[in-house]
Amino acid sequence: VAGRAGGSVFFLTDYGLADEFAGVVRASVLRHVPGVPIIDLTHGVTPFDVREGALALVRAVPHLGPGVVLAVVDPGVGTPRRAVALSVRPRAGHGGQGPHHFVGPDNGLLPWAVDVAGGVECAVALPVPSRRDTGMTFDGRDVFAPAAARLWQGTALTDLGDELDPTSLERLTSPRLSVSPGAVEAEVQWVDRFGNVQLAAGPDDATAAALGDDLEVLAPDAHRARRVTAFAELGPDTLGLIVDANGHLALVCDRRSAATVLRVHPGDVVTVRGVVPGGGSR
Amino acid sequence: VAGRAGGSVFFLTDYGLADEFAGVVRASVLRHVPGVPIIDLTHGVTPFDVREGALALVRAVPHLGPGVVLAVVDPGVGTPRRAVALSVRPRAGHGGQGPHHFVGPDNGLLPWAVDVAGGVECAVALPVPSRRDTGMTFDGRDVFAPAAARLWQGTALTDLGDELDPTSLERLTSPRLSVSPGAVEAEVQWVDRFGNVQLAAGPDDATAAALGDDLEVLAPDAHRARRVTAFAELGPDTLGLIVDANGHLALVCDRRSAATVLRVHPGDVVTVRGVVPGGGSR
Amino acid sequence: VAGRAGGSVFFLTDYGLADEFAGVVRASVLRHVPGVPIIDLTHGVTPFDVREGALALVRAVPHLGPGVVLAVVDPGVGTPRRAVALSVRPRAGHGGQGPHHFVGPDNGLLPWAVDVAGGVECAVALPVPSRRDTGMTFDGRDVFAPAAARLWQGTALTDLGDELDPTSLERLTSPRLSVSPGAVEAEVQWVDRFGNVQLAAGPDDATAAALGDDLEVLAPDAHRARRVTAFAELGPDTLGLIVDANGHLALVCDRRSAATVLRVHPGDVVTVRGVVPGGGSR
Repeated sequence: VAGRAGGSVFFLTDYGLADEFAGVVRASVLRHVPGVPIIDLTHGVTPFDVREGALALVRAVPHLGPGVVLAVVDPGVGTPRRAVALSVRPRAGHGGQGPHHFVGPDNGLLPWAVDVAGGVECAVALPVPSRRDTGMTFDGRDVFAPAAARLWQGTALTDLGDELDPTSLERLTSPRLSVSPGAVEAEVQWVDRFGNVQLAAGPDDATAAALGDDLEVLAPDAHRARRVTAFAELGPDTLGLIVDANGHLALVCDRRSAATVLRVHPGDVVTVRGVVPGGGSR
Repeated sequence: VAGRAGGSVFFLTDYGLADEFAGVVRASVLRHVPGVPIIDLTHGVTPFDVREGALALVRAVPHLGPGVVLAVVDPGVGTPRRAVALSVRPRAGHGGQGPHHFVGPDNGLLPWAVDVAGGVECAVALPVPSRRDTGMTFDGRDVFAPAAARLWQGTALTDLGDELDPTSLERLTSPRLSVSPGAVEAEVQWVDRFGNVQLAAGPDDATAAALGDDLEVLAPDAHRARRVTAFAELGPDTLGLIVDANGHLALVCDRRSAATVLRVHPGDVVTVRGVVPGGGSR
Repeated sequence: VAGRAGGSVFFLTDYGLADEFAGVVRASVLRHVPGVPIIDLTHGVTPFDVREGALALVRAVPHLGPGVVLAVVDPGVGTPRRAVALSVRPRAGHGGQGPHHFVGPDNGLLPWAVDVAGGVECAVALPVPSRRDTGMTFDGRDVFAPAAARLWQGTALTDLGDELDPTSLERLTSPRLSVSPGAVEAEVQWVDRFGNVQLAAGPDDATAAALGDDLEVLAPDAHRARRVTAFAELGPDTLGLIVDANGHLALVCDRRSAATVLRVHPGDVVTVRGVVPGGGSR
């Protein structure tokens, strides 16, 4: 597998910004290869929340240019979980416009995003040094950053470790989604800073369920809602169902947190039902 | 209007850092024009607080080198509010040392800072794609980042959209300030991380009011204060009035939050009065 | 002292990210010398906590490439405390791999980290402009950033200010550590985002005390603990003593905050004692 060098290193972790973790990893990348542009995607993933990190990567990937994704949300650091580097299958006519490599722990964090980018072309297990005497490794700093730097530089993936079967990569369970006539039942997969509630469902699911414009949301308490195309169509106390900027159905309020109104969190399941005019939910 | 390319992209939003919003916009800028240096000013503006963002830009602009300011605090995203790009009038003898372009929503966020930079030379409305079917736009990612990238690259402003009358740009109401003999009544325009309380008043206002060195602050509870030139002149329980590093009057304590002592927030109005020696306030 | 230019500017402060402080200092560095790569180490140091900042620098320095460390945690801004720039003694065989200069306040923030980097070669006091009339200086923006930029560019240290005696630099008191047979008493020097409790002690101290694998921690309440080499060796309710990724002894739990379990904070002193099998602590 020949190296496809250059672009940026796109960096996502659950390290937060209060400690120097992210800074030291950035410095480690640059120490190995000076001049790499490093783009922080976010370091605000909830500690150890692999699913939250995986979903953030999925949302980000369509908007990234060429380069290497370096992602670390790693509750299993120090266990035998594998450290991996993956190359992305070049897509016909796509011309290597997105990230060409992903580096991180083999715990489900990466595969969804790699699927969006084009699918796994090749995967290797990165050697993790044993350091029983001198202390724990900080894998972001000691394992993943050097691997990302070398891939950025053009080192072939297979020079970084032993190939592994891509089908053996850990995968997370898919978000819950169930579509029936008049109802979409879907997992809350993201609550953003503004309190918008992104569902694991898209506009096609709303169409398949024939939801209509007048809606009821069970979360589990019942709330009335309306299908809208912009926040500003909503009154101050109205809940709206929009197609958000990631192409997902989302429950929103205008300048208010829909998550607070609905009292939901990521992982909760909500049901959106069409309301028959003049009657109850259908 | 010819393009004046180069420098940095200076980036300010209310996106926070917990989500990947700021990261995706950074990536979007680089995807359009690789190699742009992006300087985060802050992403910690209170959600939807256009005034707070506008004041942060005003404080930052005098210290920025050449480049493009990309600022997004945008409660009206998805409404007919305009998206704008502005060029800055070159100042005599100033030689293009500061930002030459500003990009953001037309809601008052930009004009104050553009005034500080030299004033609006030319303004255009950026086309905002309609996406009723595929979902909301994320204007930071889809509209403002590409415009900032193209301006950085040297594209002429008028190639980005239709010219608009600069006097039609939305402007915020000026911060409240009233100066009378012995008293300055001023809006709190910023409480920083350290609890310093910046007022919408400068040293000339203190001079015009002949405030003197012994002061009373009504916020609305009365507190004694002293005019000082450094934090260290203050005892542990003393409130001081200084001229801060932005040239504003500010109420401060030494290693303590003056905002907590005064129980004030941005937007509150406080009165600073001179105290006649041996008597009450004058 | 000849300039050794290039590398990165490594930037650490207690400014937080809610305000534009860090952004303005970044912009100030670039305004003086366009093209400097700036690596944020962290801006999340507790306000005014010089010790916390100094310890973060000590942990970061071994992993930094060449460049200038720009660090500002400065409760004494505006007082006669000196502003300093330091060059690092080149280490035999080390070839200038780490930072070659440090810039910041003379309050103990820098010397520990400079010691790790190789020790002070030369030190100068940076002139701090007096601005009684136009307002306070923002030393990060107005004094330290320009100095860091000029050092990065290759300006000789002694061109930046008057030489001072390196032994006159302020130093913090060393973290508390006491080793006796069967017990290590040590200061908590860091609680990270994950709640890991780093002690001011290393594996040699555990060896010297002959701690063994079964342990009791007094914090001051007594807790049982085990010496482990990885988080995953710990059950859900077990406290472990590991050698962390900075080579320090640390008290940890698996995916849980050991600091919350122990109710300790940085600066507290804890005692780790060996437990004699079948008996009490020895």
